[in-house]
Amino acid sequence: MSAIPEEFLRKTAQLSQSVTLPLQGSQKIYVTGSRADVRVPMRMVEQTSTRTNAGVEENPPITLYDTSGPYSDPEVRIDLLRGLRAQREPWIVERGDTELLDAPSSAYGRERLADEELSALRFAHVRKPRRARAGSVVTQMHYAKRGVITPEMEFVAIRENQRLREIQDDPRYRVLLKQHRGHHFGARILEQITPEFVRDEVARGRAIIPANINHVELEPMAIGRNFLVKINTNIGNSAVTSSIEEEVEKMVWAVRWGGDTVMDLSTGRHIHETREWILRNSPVPIGTVPIYQALEKVDGKAEELTWEIFRDTLVEQAEQGVDYFTIHAGVRLPFVPLTAGRTTGIVSRGGSIMAKWCLAHHRESFLYTRFEEICEIMKAYDVSFSLGDGLRPGSIADANDDAQFAELKTLGELTQVAWRHDCQVMIEGPGHIPMQLIKENMDKELQECFGAPFYTLGPLTTDIAPGYDHITSAIGAAQIGWYGTAMLCYVTPKEHLGLPNKQDVRDGIISYKIAAHAADLAKGHPGAQLRDNALSKARFEFRWQDQFNLSLDPEKAREFHDETLPKDAHKVAHFCSMCGPHFCSMKITQDVRDYARKHGIEETRAALEEGMKEKAKEFKDSGGDVYQQA
Amino acid sequence: MSAIPEEFLRKTAQLSQSVTLPLQGSQKIYVTGSRADVRVPMRMVEQTSTRTNAGVEENPPITLYDTSGPYSDPEVRIDLLRGLRAQREPWIVERGDTELLDAPSSAYGRERLADEELSALRFAHVRKPRRARAGSVVTQMHYAKRGVITPEMEFVAIRENQRLREIQDDPRYRVLLKQHRGHHFGARILEQITPEFVRDEVARGRAIIPANINHVELEPMAIGRNFLVKINTNIGNSAVTSSIEEEVEKMVWAVRWGGDTVMDLSTGRHIHETREWILRNSPVPIGTVPIYQALEKVDGKAEELTWEIFRDTLVEQAEQGVDYFTIHAGVRLPFVPLTAGRTTGIVSRGGSIMAKWCLAHHRESFLYTRFEEICEIMKAYDVSFSLGDGLRPGSIADANDDAQFAELKTLGELTQVAWRHDCQVMIEGPGHIPMQLIKENMDKELQECFGAPFYTLGPLTTDIAPGYDHITSAIGAAQIGWYGTAMLCYVTPKEHLGLPNKQDVRDGIISYKIAAHAADLAKGHPGAQLRDNALSKARFEFRWQDQFNLSLDPEKAREFHDETLPKDAHKVAHFCSMCGPHFCSMKITQDVRDYARKHGIEETRAALEEGMKEKAKEFKDSGGDVYQQA
Repeated sequence: MSAIPEEFLRKTAQLSQSVTLPLQGSQKIYVTGSRADVRVPMRMVEQTSTRTNAGVEENPPITLYDTSGPYSDPEVRIDLLRGLRAQREPWIVERGDTELLDAPSSAYGRERLADEELSALRFAHVRKPRRARAGSVVTQMHYAKRGVITPEMEFVAIRENQRLREIQDDPRYRVLLKQHRGHHFGARILEQITPEFVRDEVARGRAIIPANINHVELEPMAIGRNFLVKINTNIGNSAVTSSIEEEVEKMVWAVRWGGDTVMDLSTGRHIHETREWILRNSPVPIGTVPIYQALEKVDGKAEELTWEIFRDTLVEQAEQGVDYFTIHAGVRLPFVPLTAGRTTGIVSRGGSIMAKWCLAHHRESFLYTRFEEICEIMKAYDVSFSLGDGLRPGSIADANDDAQFAELKTLGELTQVAWRHDCQVMIEGPGHIPMQLIKENMDKELQECFGAPFYTLGPLTTDIAPGYDHITSAIGAAQIGWYGTAMLCYVTPKEHLGLPNKQDVRDGIISYKIAAHAADLAKGHPGAQLRDNALSKARFEFRWQDQFNLSLDPEKAREFHDETLPKDAHKVAHFCSMCGPHFCSMKITQDVRDYARKHGIEETRAALEEGMKEKAKEFKDSGGDVYQQA
Repeated sequence: MSAIPEEFLRKTAQLSQSVTLPLQGSQKIYVTGSRADVRVPMRMVEQTSTRTNAGVEENPPITLYDTSGPYSDPEVRIDLLRGLRAQREPWIVERGDTELLDAPSSAYGRERLADEELSALRFAHVRKPRRARAGSVVTQMHYAKRGVITPEMEFVAIRENQRLREIQDDPRYRVLLKQHRGHHFGARILEQITPEFVRDEVARGRAIIPANINHVELEPMAIGRNFLVKINTNIGNSAVTSSIEEEVEKMVWAVRWGGDTVMDLSTGRHIHETREWILRNSPVPIGTVPIYQALEKVDGKAEELTWEIFRDTLVEQAEQGVDYFTIHAGVRLPFVPLTAGRTTGIVSRGGSIMAKWCLAHHRESFLYTRFEEICEIMKAYDVSFSLGDGLRPGSIADANDDAQFAELKTLGELTQVAWRHDCQVMIEGPGHIPMQLIKENMDKELQECFGAPFYTLGPLTTDIAPGYDHITSAIGAAQIGWYGTAMLCYVTPKEHLGLPNKQDVRDGIISYKIAAHAADLAKGHPGAQLRDNALSKARFEFRWQDQFNLSLDPEKAREFHDETLPKDAHKVAHFCSMCGPHFCSMKITQDVRDYARKHGIEETRAALEEGMKEKAKEFKDSGGDVYQQA
């Protein structure tokens, strides 16, 4: 540790307060599973009571899904230099199918470790890498297919349920459990997620639990159509800007606001060291696009990429603990010319790199021809495939074209190869798609990729709003999430224009939490409406603090309210700024309830039906002609 | 004019630069109709050329729909004290069915005019009010039913077309005219909007042209399912804050960003005078909720409202030139108790006022019982009905309930009454609706309100994101717009929390322009994709300035780009901040095109089909079983 310069320590070892303060108005709880070390974190929002003329009515606490990790737990001492607690380690060791290696098996990993100049940047407590014993497969899918329920699967089941069973049994929640029937488009939406159901979904390939055996700090989560819709966030410095400490802070910031997974898209000089810092401190799965780093190793010259360099990069990253790799193995040589007539050609970086390689060598992509060899690596560490959509449309004009769908079909073919190896797979999707063409994407994916989880970027529903693409894409994301997409890759306001700062990341995440939750509601996910109901009841009863605390971004809600009515007294006032103290529409509802109690609802319904009959008759008498000529 | 205090003049007579500077990168043009005084404003964005190895290729100018009025025309001298030019006056006078009154016919209008104390606030050049001659009806629907094509209808037709015919005939646009087939859910989407089609739609009640004969400054527009989707913006001071000059500036700001209509929801002391300033300076239709002002006249005591006070308010506002009135005539006494079991009762202010009145008197609403008398007023000035949804759901829990749909049925009944009087009608809709229940709203509205234009608030697709309800609602708005809603009422980030400032208004408007445009694309509105295609082509070719100028908010796009790459040189640089100068995915596409030219696309397709056949066979051989048991 003495090798780390004072200045770097000071900067990197401390996160800014903005990412470590407990989330406003909630406290951390843990729900324990069948064994003491399966401790599933949740956030619990306590509510104040409702005061009416009839007396005081208690409002029960609301449990929220929590991605923020130990950072939001005031009981946990955060030490970025040591990383998070290795809570998965006993689970992995117990399985007895892995071995610790003395040194990294990638040439690059060894080289970086030996480089004295990097000691100042290097994470100090690097663990020895772990790998499957010869002949073993260590993927969650492998266990699932053999009928084994892992601690990871149980963790996921508890997490997905969000204490719904206890809540349903508690009479205090009765009024909050009202929920509309969903429309699930064929998804299998259960009342209760059991560990066995998680196992079954993983075995069928309909869900993945991205969980590299070297990412022992992970709090497991699932990505699948029959679970809550998840969101991915991207971080990553680029050649132009950014540094290690910024990236770690961005990751913590991203999970604080609700990022379920984080992709590290770094392309800079210390990409290997940055990744180590991020992984050791990340409670969520980390994904990467290994071809980016491979390209750096050949100085950005795509045509100089080789299978050997790429392979070494996969092993390097797998041994660090990356949970899923984007692999653009569907960008096949014969598909590349299909993009020639496009408005925006190939816009995926990974897709472009592979297209360039294929053209330069006039040969089939090595990602495609070596796919089984890639599977061998993935299954030795349980790195999940995120089969990349290198030919996704970059504009409305190019949506749903031959190139895009040829690639999708190939991804389905590769999915079956990966499944034969017991590798976990999700499928990446577009992109820019007008609304009327979104559903075709989902339907084709389900059919051609055999139900593997879909993971889409947006889609953006128009091209004309740079600066607001978190919104153009949240519109598409909500829809495709409803139709069955398992994870939505967020888009920030800076998309197409520049690198997102912290505020952009927050805006992007909240937009996507909205899209994902709107999709959960529409699918009819059990308990999804509980938070809406609780927040709306709080709003209606002028319990401002409860409303803020239950919202996706309590800080923003509070700040906006303060702008118009800054006084603390207004937070308990029975009026809001829209109407002022003199008149309040919500107050009137109390009168309605009193009236209804007095006059009885039956009297009302009778009068109502009478009115309807009259109206129908009148319309019929007039000949039922809508267009009455003058 | 001397009565106006210096200070007020200085403040009110001048708009801040932020609302009068010409919109970045575009110039104002006018398309003239069959008569010289039908001059339809549009914005024209000139583009730079594309430089390739093959030479220089011209990119033609793009025409954009323009709501910003004369404010964005550097040729027009703006004088808020005099108001905008009375361009509709000759059209109205020519029809010979109206008369100028010597004085306002409302008691309140006369009273305010006589009040010496108000002279400092009063708009100086108040015109005499105009009204239909006894026995005449002056609505656009009335003319339409008689087969008359008014200048207003021709104006609308030209405006909707956006020069598409000329563009289609111009070979420079060929590459930009590619468009996906829409899915229109039964809307009648024409290749070319003719004045006769506008007339026919207005006659059938499927579209309205809100255009009070006293709002002579108006640039006419149409609201209808078979036209471009429009958006409404709200301004209005409240009891808590705001002043006249702020409201005028907000209106100009709203139309600058794309507001098609503006509702003035003011509730303050100088509501009458504020409205006059707004109307005289507004190029777009102004809507109001007259019950708000009526309530002020009885000191906020809903139970003291009378038909006489309400009637006087309608006449007062009609003679000022308000183009549409929200009238909550569907909040009937028997429906009120249907809301008693709701999570959030009655959240519409107008709905609450009427519910309170009905309960206090235990009588049917006077808006319902006096509806024909209201029609008499509306048709004498051509004020359009916006039949209010006073019982709209204020939470996901209350969506699509009995109260909401009972009111909707009644609005349909009233629509037919209004149509018998040749009054123009649109129907207000919700509110808070989860995605899977949105379509039912549209379907019911079309059926039960006989195709009258639907005008919805959002809908918000979840309740859990206060501070981001422009996004929760843009998701719903895009969908319902696609299904057939004619106008989307915007929601700002401050919804539920406070009063929007200028930035909130801008965010709300852009979110809704996105939703409306996404809907136009999805419906397949002719030419809708042209702007997307042009912008994406510019993006792909690194024509940064063209990309910015074609976007919904050029200022924001430019500002965001500057944050990462501030130098001017970067605006013409062939790389963006995401990838850096070393590697660029878009550059690679040039290689693809060269390759495709060399190898031919047919070779590719053959290889592709071969691959597909193989794959299908392989899957069939494996028994076609997705779930391969271990």
